[in-house]
Amino acid sequence: MAKATIPYTDYFKETIQRMREDGLLLVTCDASGTPNVMTIGWGAIGSIWGRPAWLVLVRPSRHTYSRLEEVGEFTVNVPPKELAAAAAHCGKVSGRDHDKFQEMSLTAMPARQVRPPVIAECVVHYECRVLHRNDLAPQTLAQAVHDEYYPEDNFHRIYYGEIVASYAEEDAARRLGGPTAFATLR
Amino acid sequence: MAKATIPYTDYFKETIQRMREDGLLLVTCDASGTPNVMTIGWGAIGSIWGRPAWLVLVRPSRHTYSRLEEVGEFTVNVPPKELAAAAAHCGKVSGRDHDKFQEMSLTAMPARQVRPPVIAECVVHYECRVLHRNDLAPQTLAQAVHDEYYPEDNFHRIYYGEIVASYAEEDAARRLGGPTAFATLR
Repeated sequence: MAKATIPYTDYFKETIQRMREDGLLLVTCDASGTPNVMTIGWGAIGSIWGRPAWLVLVRPSRHTYSRLEEVGEFTVNVPPKELAAAAAHCGKVSGRDHDKFQEMSLTAMPARQVRPPVIAECVVHYECRVLHRNDLAPQTLAQAVHDEYYPEDNFHRIYYGEIVASYAEEDAARRLGGPTAFATLR
Repeated sequence: MAKATIPYTDYFKETIQRMREDGLLLVTCDASGTPNVMTIGWGAIGSIWGRPAWLVLVRPSRHTYSRLEEVGEFTVNVPPKELAAAAAHCGKVSGRDHDKFQEMSLTAMPARQVRPPVIAECVVHYECRVLHRNDLAPQTLAQAVHDEYYPEDNFHRIYYGEIVASYAEEDAARRLGGPTAFATLR
């Protein structure tokens, strides 16, 4: 099915819903173009510096981190529910010693504007170019968050990506779960 | 008209649209509860640390900045189009020497969960408690953004607010402009 260009705000609700359920697939690549994918459960979408923006959090220990530092571009891909196992796997193992695309039969499809590919089996795609990055400031982090997520002080780096393309399958809304599934979210 | 609780993701599209058109109204208060309002044109909404989040950018030169540092709570209010003049005014003058609520006939209505009030005349409201803040890192900012927005190196601080309540007027969608108005946005 064709992937049609959409305003980047169109699937916010479904994107956040899927991010909280199974996670989204963040794809990066190294300078030679070899892609890697990891699962993200946190992020934000908005408009910053007059530009559409996707903010993602990546820990320095991640394979993705070195790729983002090397090639400042990424894609965020929203998996349909049938990719739940792939999302779980991509969140568990590292691209250092796993070819997650192959292991989970994910198809790397060339992106429109950036070097990292998108994942063909996903239904909504955001292509992003990093405009900025900064780091969590541990001393200003709420204690409850620090205790819960950073017991080893492995703080995230935040990447501010300008969304340079966004598109979706025509039946994306249906495949990502309708309003009923979403009503329980908060 | 009653303001009904909504999932925080419900009015994302309209919120971003209004942020880009006239701006949103960011309300803070000092320790004594005196409110101040400023207009914001940038921000992001998402889910971070398993919590609904609103990210706002505030320059240290702003009156709002000292309030956010003192009372780590804020509300984001989405103005209908008829408040365009108020949004413009609140973005131009400082709360140091202006009572913008009075000047623009804005009604400070007690919030449900945080100390700063919401603005009764607005139609969607997000109440937020700051979980974290960090600063832009000038050395990693895209040159085009630096040149365009920070010629005087007056860099923003980014506040990560947990959304602790969100609600809207029942006719919010209509009052914020329907799909037709939004179709042109990107």
